[in-house]
Amino acid sequence: MARVRPTSDDRERIRKVADAILTRISDLAEDRGLQAQAMLVGSAARGTWLAGDHDLDIFIAVPEASDIKDALSLARAVAPEHEEKYAEHPYVHAAIEGFDVDLVPCYLLENTSRLKSAVDRTPFHTRYVLGKISGLEDQVLLLKQFMKGIGVYGSELKVGGFSGYLSELLVLRYGSFMGVLEGASGWRPGKIIDLECGGVLSHDGPLVVVDPVDPKRNVAAALTLDKMLQFAASARCFIKGPSLDFFFPGRIQPLTDEELIKIMELRRSAFILLEFPAPPVVEDILFPQLRKAEESIRFLLARNEFSVLRSDVESVNGLAWVLFELDVWELPRIVRRFGPPAYEGDHLSRFISSHPHPISGPYVEGGRAVVEVERKHTKAWDLLEGELPKLSLGKHLAVEIQKCHSIYVGPAIVTTTSPEFKTFLARYFSRGQRIC
Amino acid sequence: MARVRPTSDDRERIRKVADAILTRISDLAEDRGLQAQAMLVGSAARGTWLAGDHDLDIFIAVPEASDIKDALSLARAVAPEHEEKYAEHPYVHAAIEGFDVDLVPCYLLENTSRLKSAVDRTPFHTRYVLGKISGLEDQVLLLKQFMKGIGVYGSELKVGGFSGYLSELLVLRYGSFMGVLEGASGWRPGKIIDLECGGVLSHDGPLVVVDPVDPKRNVAAALTLDKMLQFAASARCFIKGPSLDFFFPGRIQPLTDEELIKIMELRRSAFILLEFPAPPVVEDILFPQLRKAEESIRFLLARNEFSVLRSDVESVNGLAWVLFELDVWELPRIVRRFGPPAYEGDHLSRFISSHPHPISGPYVEGGRAVVEVERKHTKAWDLLEGELPKLSLGKHLAVEIQKCHSIYVGPAIVTTTSPEFKTFLARYFSRGQRIC
Repeated sequence: MARVRPTSDDRERIRKVADAILTRISDLAEDRGLQAQAMLVGSAARGTWLAGDHDLDIFIAVPEASDIKDALSLARAVAPEHEEKYAEHPYVHAAIEGFDVDLVPCYLLENTSRLKSAVDRTPFHTRYVLGKISGLEDQVLLLKQFMKGIGVYGSELKVGGFSGYLSELLVLRYGSFMGVLEGASGWRPGKIIDLECGGVLSHDGPLVVVDPVDPKRNVAAALTLDKMLQFAASARCFIKGPSLDFFFPGRIQPLTDEELIKIMELRRSAFILLEFPAPPVVEDILFPQLRKAEESIRFLLARNEFSVLRSDVESVNGLAWVLFELDVWELPRIVRRFGPPAYEGDHLSRFISSHPHPISGPYVEGGRAVVEVERKHTKAWDLLEGELPKLSLGKHLAVEIQKCHSIYVGPAIVTTTSPEFKTFLARYFSRGQRIC
Repeated sequence: MARVRPTSDDRERIRKVADAILTRISDLAEDRGLQAQAMLVGSAARGTWLAGDHDLDIFIAVPEASDIKDALSLARAVAPEHEEKYAEHPYVHAAIEGFDVDLVPCYLLENTSRLKSAVDRTPFHTRYVLGKISGLEDQVLLLKQFMKGIGVYGSELKVGGFSGYLSELLVLRYGSFMGVLEGASGWRPGKIIDLECGGVLSHDGPLVVVDPVDPKRNVAAALTLDKMLQFAASARCFIKGPSLDFFFPGRIQPLTDEELIKIMELRRSAFILLEFPAPPVVEDILFPQLRKAEESIRFLLARNEFSVLRSDVESVNGLAWVLFELDVWELPRIVRRFGPPAYEGDHLSRFISSHPHPISGPYVEGGRAVVEVERKHTKAWDLLEGELPKLSLGKHLAVEIQKCHSIYVGPAIVTTTSPEFKTFLARYFSRGQRIC
């Protein structure tokens, strides 16, 4: 417990910093004659933050009738040295006395019936949890750390895992950390959890947790099937054989170039890496675009009879990577093209005249006309380089890739790019989850 | 016409030889006190044999009540130097005065309602065609030679094409050679031709031609979809641009070893050849077994993620071959094994314990558990050599293959086997049909 529960000194310090910021916002609002209310939300407000976390979420709420930009200008004024970010709406991020502080404008609402954006819901979540969680904070901490340890914590799109609020609701539903694990070990896709009997309004997603403060919303909407089932399977493992390793799995060791190349030689597959500068957008915009690019390229390769064993995406320090490991990366020069059913005279004539000099054929096979012609790209990387400009990639990605990109092949992927990539690669190779 | 119609000298000679054999059978039967009737059947009897053909089909019919072995012993006695063959029943094959003579025992029947075997039907076919074909013999000869030229003539299972009787019925149906081509150019799978309105009794097959003497039977039962559609497509071509080449396409030129290897290098695919002694059975038994072996091996390769571009079978001079041309013949050492859905706890546990030391994994992907393990056979030929004994091959083939076989790979297939194989290979490469 000591490793997950913040010390009383930590608690004292976070309270002090938060109070100072809240007071400063109130003062500034008064100076400006604005009716704005600042509030601490998130795990710091609910007493469910993990030791070592230094995130503070502070919301600046203005009345429905006012302009939300007033709240944004307050945020800017509170933290003169800040970074402006953008999710559904703009917000301010600043480092204040060692904490990562998000200052988020929102509307002050009486109830959830007139939500203007997702952030307007957060104060209601904090109020709901605060009213019920008392005495269960440690159970939440255990669950969050467990989820972190097995890699399913975080509702950002890069992770697709469990949000803090979701983990709190699970503890409320099942009563304890072990209760959640026991419950989850029996989960199947389609599981529904509805704490306040709010009813389920055609939610989809593998897990539906009805939001107690807004039944139209699925709290687990960002959770992917794989993260859900991995959590369930890890829960089963932990129940069979509990171990601290679930919570603190030890960091992936970076591997040397020689080690990485040795692993690649053992696998005897082929690696292709697409590298380009990450566009300046938040991860929740970047990662869906990276996944889209990954899918487009997988589809391109498959359509041309190459075969992908596994692929993954990552972005660190301004660089973005889409990595492919291939089963089949080189094909014969000869390729068969299948034409129409041989009894469709007109189609057949057009097909045959569009291949005037086949290497073999035309012949009839399985009722269809077939010709054997020369393949345009016999190597997967030539195909990728040749077709990349025509692919449907994410909007921001397409711009960056057009400006500049590199394609690395085979062992070259290890030696030609950044150290962060090697960590990504080491994680890729070590992939193995606690499931049973 | 001169190249397809037998000369009057030819006609004279065939009649003389046939008459001599028929008389000899009658005499012998009388000597033995047997009630047997010999008759000339097939194209020689119907005046529809092609110039250069030297086949004589003579049936020896005995009354229903007698033993068919009497007919067989007559056949043996007529041609002391003979070879015994076996299709549905045993028969005798002999070379007599330059002709290939088949002496086939059958029953003497009043009508087709009590047929004992397929050969009993033949005399009825001859009678039916003789009664109608007069004046159309040349049309039949043109059609047969056209079918020969484009490679769809012959109902033996090796070819899967049109029988002589089928081509005669088509001329009766469409009135002339050009009539047949015009009719066929519109054929689609499922086409039904019923000359005597005998009705169709749930025949399947791409083309159904109801036998006028036995409506239960589809005369085109042996015709494959591909040969049917190739005939239809060639008919369209001929109508658009008639040419003697359809009838006399010129022989496939045998290629030198260097030429064959050059073609293989151009294609950049991989060839695997399975060679073994052909079992001593007729082609109608051998070829279905060769095709079965071909299918079993294709399935084995596909199941193991290798990919076959094209394959073919052949047997000449006591050797049999199953040839595969591969798109993908070598795979990485690493292979993914997909387990059960990750929520099926018991199955999952068994799956994970059956792969105790995966190279990567287990992990959850698409809702299922996945491990990455070592592939047993990374090369297609190793797989074939290793799994051949376990495959379901044809009965006679399995015996021969177990006794002795060779597997050749790549350019070695050209240099290590017989000259007949090279002709087969040249035909394989030159494959191209007159379709449009």
